[in-house]
Amino acid sequence: MNILSKEKYFDSRIKKIFFSSINKITSNLIILKDENIYYLTGFYSKESGNLLLITNDSLYLLVNFIYLEQAKKSIKNKKINIICYRRDKFKKLAEILEGYNFKSVKIEGRNISFTDFCKLEKIMSKQGKKLVSVDGVVERLRLVKDEIEISKIKNACSITDKVFKNIINLGASEINNYEEIELAYKIEEFLVKNNSSGRSFDIIVSYDKNSSIPHYSPRKIKIKEGLILMDFGCRFDNYCSDMTRTIFTKDNKICNEFKKIYDIVLEAQLNAIENCREGITCVELDKVARKFIISRGYGNNFGHGLGHGVGLEVHEEPAVKMGNRIVLKENMVITIEPAVYIENVGGVRIEDMVLVRKNKCEVLNDSRKDFFILD
Amino acid sequence: MNILSKEKYFDSRIKKIFFSSINKITSNLIILKDENIYYLTGFYSKESGNLLLITNDSLYLLVNFIYLEQAKKSIKNKKINIICYRRDKFKKLAEILEGYNFKSVKIEGRNISFTDFCKLEKIMSKQGKKLVSVDGVVERLRLVKDEIEISKIKNACSITDKVFKNIINLGASEINNYEEIELAYKIEEFLVKNNSSGRSFDIIVSYDKNSSIPHYSPRKIKIKEGLILMDFGCRFDNYCSDMTRTIFTKDNKICNEFKKIYDIVLEAQLNAIENCREGITCVELDKVARKFIISRGYGNNFGHGLGHGVGLEVHEEPAVKMGNRIVLKENMVITIEPAVYIENVGGVRIEDMVLVRKNKCEVLNDSRKDFFILD
Repeated sequence: MNILSKEKYFDSRIKKIFFSSINKITSNLIILKDENIYYLTGFYSKESGNLLLITNDSLYLLVNFIYLEQAKKSIKNKKINIICYRRDKFKKLAEILEGYNFKSVKIEGRNISFTDFCKLEKIMSKQGKKLVSVDGVVERLRLVKDEIEISKIKNACSITDKVFKNIINLGASEINNYEEIELAYKIEEFLVKNNSSGRSFDIIVSYDKNSSIPHYSPRKIKIKEGLILMDFGCRFDNYCSDMTRTIFTKDNKICNEFKKIYDIVLEAQLNAIENCREGITCVELDKVARKFIISRGYGNNFGHGLGHGVGLEVHEEPAVKMGNRIVLKENMVITIEPAVYIENVGGVRIEDMVLVRKNKCEVLNDSRKDFFILD
Repeated sequence: MNILSKEKYFDSRIKKIFFSSINKITSNLIILKDENIYYLTGFYSKESGNLLLITNDSLYLLVNFIYLEQAKKSIKNKKINIICYRRDKFKKLAEILEGYNFKSVKIEGRNISFTDFCKLEKIMSKQGKKLVSVDGVVERLRLVKDEIEISKIKNACSITDKVFKNIINLGASEINNYEEIELAYKIEEFLVKNNSSGRSFDIIVSYDKNSSIPHYSPRKIKIKEGLILMDFGCRFDNYCSDMTRTIFTKDNKICNEFKKIYDIVLEAQLNAIENCREGITCVELDKVARKFIISRGYGNNFGHGLGHGVGLEVHEEPAVKMGNRIVLKENMVITIEPAVYIENVGGVRIEDMVLVRKNKCEVLNDSRKDFFILD
């Protein structure tokens, strides 16, 4: 796919913002989230503080000096005015807005701090303009992935699968020589060597009882023989992957204890995958796995949601959890990751990414997930 | 230093919040930023969404299920009530606050989104309580580092120096075989092997003209011979380091072009270090380096601030830049990192971390920074 056809996607997304009758957001909108800015312009920079203003006739990207050259190189859409600010982006924004006589400006309320909102509100009021908070305008578009996004996500997932194979191929004797933190960095080495631009989040490698902490940070702890939980993903052309596998490197006590739990988690995951399709709500899908785990007596040990959306962000909407009534639609991408954690003993989590289809879902990972003891 | 004496620090910081007459913040304060929570409790988790409530008689840490076990293990202060929420932290917070009859609750306005602030404000108003935004209560304490923080930061800097030596020891012929992204991950390998818990931010390795982009993301580009800018740091026991070196692997065209610029940037950096001491303002210190670079004709090529604070966050207050009148105090830790960027040609940045002292500053990095061509 060449650059021109890629550009088509960015342009068509901006048009969707302009002409979206559902959102009634036609213009005068300020976008702050880096991933939303990328989605509309093709320019991405992490935690940049950059800002995109969409008015009825123009687009303005306000970038700090340090992102200027990069922005100029990434953005092919000639309609986007790239403007550099050195100190105060809100002052620069106010200068642009002075040329417009509309009465209100919308801004992403979820992506601006309360303090900054108040600061900008004050500046706007001097111009007789009201600052109005709106949420999810771009995020709603990002929920359903288009073909270029799906292709990038599939690439990211396939790299993740390759890396899991690389790890397995090391064999138990080599893995048992690593510290948790060394194995985590080994995973990153493989992610980079397999053509990704690196990890999409801080890699989790937790050994034995450390695995009962869902968001564990790997430490300088020798792995030795036992249970190893690995949760990792990569970025491919800005899109993320996310996968978890729990493996065993020795048929010992913890392995015996967790064989039963492993099979419960796996069955819960397969049930959820079986039921994942367009039309089901997030809470219903969560319930499929949760009910099964509860029925086996481990309800209190599965304390987080079943999954989350993945795309430009590794955690994005929809949250597949209790209380979320969002209906899944074709071409949404989510994780399905039931788990059972026994405090101070250990935990099992099995996670795949899936692409929602009309009557089923497509599992985007093909790494083995049967219970096995690595040689 | 054993655990007990470490705990003393966390407790004394909480007392400072209670008894700070400058801030007039005695209680009823909600802390949201993970680094601020760590600073007061000893429990750290990245982007956790956790929340610490300080009332006149108690401390409550509200954690999501996935952080519960970790929080219980990290927190030694028995006065902190650890409370687990599974879905809505604001509802849980409201339940606790119902037991109190004070009229207003303070919250970190810079660390909460506008949308969340409005949501919580609504819940509070049902209890007849006002939600008031305050900023910088904990950040102000964090500005000046105590001895345990300084010792951790020094460790992080010394690891960074060791890693720079490791890289230099690879020699030009090996470095010239890497892609930018491979060298970045090699740096992380060394950071981990030298006893840190990994990088403190996404490592920058930019080759030749890519170095003109200050926040460049390394790509699959072969390094070959020329200019290499490396900006990296690590975490040691939650504290960060941050250092930049620009090196040359061949006496070629770009090396000749940049020899002059290199010496200008280095002299600007040494001038700033010479002038860095308690009592100077951030803007004054920035000006020392900036004036020199302007005098040599490169004023427009140094588009960012001279530096920033480093501690639990790799970028924290004070921002050493134009317009910031904060006065440096003893035991603040900042970076000094002047630079010159020539669009589409290349850039030089030289960055060290320094500890501010009464009449001077202590440079925390000792990596060589003279102009040299690596063999």
